[in-house]
Amino acid sequence: MDTRISRRKFLEAGSVTTAGVALAAGSKKTAYAADKKKVRVGIVGTGNRGCSLLTTMLHIEGIEFPALCDINTANLARAQEILTKAGQKKPEGYVEGDHAFEKLMEREDLDAVIIATPWQWHTPMAVFAMKHGKYVGVEVPAAITIDQCWDLVKTHEKTGVPCMMLENWSFRSDNLALLNMVRQGMFGEIVHCHCAHSHDCIDHWFFDPEGNIRWGGEFLINRNCDQYPTHSLGPVLSWLDINCGDYFEYVTSTASDSKGINAYFTRKFGPNHPNAKRKYKQGDIVTTVVRTYKGKSIVINYDMQLPRPYDNRWMLQGTEGIYNEQRNALYIVDKSPEYHQWEPFPPYMENYNHYWYSDKEWQAAIEQGHGGTDFLELSVFIDAVRNGTQTPIDVYDSVVMSCIVGLSEKSIASGSKPVKCPDFTNGRWKNKKPTFGVKA
Amino acid sequence: MDTRISRRKFLEAGSVTTAGVALAAGSKKTAYAADKKKVRVGIVGTGNRGCSLLTTMLHIEGIEFPALCDINTANLARAQEILTKAGQKKPEGYVEGDHAFEKLMEREDLDAVIIATPWQWHTPMAVFAMKHGKYVGVEVPAAITIDQCWDLVKTHEKTGVPCMMLENWSFRSDNLALLNMVRQGMFGEIVHCHCAHSHDCIDHWFFDPEGNIRWGGEFLINRNCDQYPTHSLGPVLSWLDINCGDYFEYVTSTASDSKGINAYFTRKFGPNHPNAKRKYKQGDIVTTVVRTYKGKSIVINYDMQLPRPYDNRWMLQGTEGIYNEQRNALYIVDKSPEYHQWEPFPPYMENYNHYWYSDKEWQAAIEQGHGGTDFLELSVFIDAVRNGTQTPIDVYDSVVMSCIVGLSEKSIASGSKPVKCPDFTNGRWKNKKPTFGVKA
Repeated sequence: MDTRISRRKFLEAGSVTTAGVALAAGSKKTAYAADKKKVRVGIVGTGNRGCSLLTTMLHIEGIEFPALCDINTANLARAQEILTKAGQKKPEGYVEGDHAFEKLMEREDLDAVIIATPWQWHTPMAVFAMKHGKYVGVEVPAAITIDQCWDLVKTHEKTGVPCMMLENWSFRSDNLALLNMVRQGMFGEIVHCHCAHSHDCIDHWFFDPEGNIRWGGEFLINRNCDQYPTHSLGPVLSWLDINCGDYFEYVTSTASDSKGINAYFTRKFGPNHPNAKRKYKQGDIVTTVVRTYKGKSIVINYDMQLPRPYDNRWMLQGTEGIYNEQRNALYIVDKSPEYHQWEPFPPYMENYNHYWYSDKEWQAAIEQGHGGTDFLELSVFIDAVRNGTQTPIDVYDSVVMSCIVGLSEKSIASGSKPVKCPDFTNGRWKNKKPTFGVKA
Repeated sequence: MDTRISRRKFLEAGSVTTAGVALAAGSKKTAYAADKKKVRVGIVGTGNRGCSLLTTMLHIEGIEFPALCDINTANLARAQEILTKAGQKKPEGYVEGDHAFEKLMEREDLDAVIIATPWQWHTPMAVFAMKHGKYVGVEVPAAITIDQCWDLVKTHEKTGVPCMMLENWSFRSDNLALLNMVRQGMFGEIVHCHCAHSHDCIDHWFFDPEGNIRWGGEFLINRNCDQYPTHSLGPVLSWLDINCGDYFEYVTSTASDSKGINAYFTRKFGPNHPNAKRKYKQGDIVTTVVRTYKGKSIVINYDMQLPRPYDNRWMLQGTEGIYNEQRNALYIVDKSPEYHQWEPFPPYMENYNHYWYSDKEWQAAIEQGHGGTDFLELSVFIDAVRNGTQTPIDVYDSVVMSCIVGLSEKSIASGSKPVKCPDFTNGRWKNKKPTFGVKA
């Protein structure tokens, strides 16, 4: 009963970033709250992304890395070497089999874990980590089914342990400046957003440059959905007060046929290459349309297997103006100098620079060449761990971004029927105040 | 029976622009086919748009204007004056009541009528004109309900008289150059398009600058749909071979709440202005997603009541490349100089200039300052009338663009359920070859 009460208290407290967070009674206590100095981080998954995060964290003060885990020995050794070369102690390595991560997470000397593994492992690992009292920083998407979304939420609510999906595009300086402008009401009431993850990943992510399938590519064979909706949705979440004033009511989703992968292999490796002849379930372009309870609409495009330059195509429209990332421009009624004409966004970006980017510490970091979104994202995550506070992206934010994977799949499979979004917050979105990027 | 046969022959012949078209037996014959000189055009609706079309037609050789119609005497007089000032005979005016147009269309000395009236009149007038043997050039949208779409199709099939919606954006030089590129396979197999009619029309089209509601604004009170989908869809139709190889299978449509109109009136006329307090059914942003039988997807945005610069946001994606109108750029695999980097579209636009724009006559017209899409569109319409051939945009093209009005309304009203698109072509889309902009 007491556990239940303190869990509830945590959940309430968790809606304000400044509130201290005590881990729920019953979960394994670690020493970080008492210590408030070094934060001890374990990393699970030390491939390219894991090593990149590790390297970035080397520039954040007060982190120790007692343990790393990867099923690939070479990956693990490389990560250990990064640390020893940086003058840190060689971390213990966990490499034996798919469940080696459990041994790492069972350690008593870790405050947090970073999870940078294949998608299907994100939720099981995050759940295990929360159950063992470790703050979770998990790569995107946090979950790839609706059941996994619920697993994360329920585990968080049971353990009280924060879980943050590492959606770095929420931390981009342009997106944060825009958030400032939105919160100051410059666009009036927000009505609509478009966003996309337009990134041709056929030749490096889904398949390697030699045409061999990677783990990411396996998802293209058996699923048809928005596989990767969080880089597009991340900043939109806070622009639209999703989870803190508004919430997804339902989505529809439509996929084009799958043509791009076969065309790529035919073009590059010839029509007889096995991957040129294979049948892929994943459509090339998935368009998901969300309607929120407060009557806003969001268009989300998955677009990762046709040849094209990288793009996010963010667009935000309100009753007083519009922002368009592709044009790097905006228009605001009675403010923009010419009627119905774009004006450049960069001056606004400077004027409405988010405090995270104007803080001297980040400025110094940027000047030292290791600033940017990952640095900011990991810094605020580590700060939360150190202070025992809620993470800036909480478990509800993590799952509401990720649930588009499962919802879009269901809609596409049914011929684009509307699919209701589960309320992971159990109604708390109605009264929660915005916390992301809000100054303490 | 003979009528039936000749109608069928017409429909078959109509799939090739070069084929001569004899009006079906039983319909009123006019003299244009025999004469092949002057084309005699009546104009119904001589407001701003009608007068603009009239003025443009003054620059096309071989047109006479025996009759004009408008319920507004001043509009009619202005149009008559345009003609007399240009040295033409003063046309007879029809002004008495809503059905004055019938008297005009019953005249024996007209080969064609141009209809530029409020939306709800487009179909009834076009139907009446076809029944009286007059080629129809009707402003957009040709129809505003699915029933009206069927009225147009059935009347055309009964009378054999061509009906062309005057969708001028299908005739833009950029869109036609892109069509050339698409047809040459430069983008590979086309997979997806985005298009929008993003045009803030609150202060001049839906309402006048003094805040009085115009006829267009009445639609905002009682309907919630994509009111105006043809400027966005026009060029997409030919890029994607809709009606000639592919067809809309179903659409889903989602509207945001209606906020922009009330905000506009509150801002400009104060919160107590009746139009600031009025409830509008029409959502600010409507997103319609089409899936075609051949597995392509199209996103169409209605966006006419929030403050913003004009935009169409055309984007086309295929297995070999992408075109992006907002960026005025494209990327083509193995052709664009840098991997995954945009290159400017204008050089391509020049290289793939459509023959309609390279023709000496149009060049001369452009140099004389009256070229452009309306001139081209009306010229090819008049050519079809003069030669007794099918119009470049036929009745099926006209209704498939327009049917989005009714389909989106139905989907929105049902909470974004998918709505099947009726097959107005009765299966002929499967075998018809592309004709739009194809050189004879």
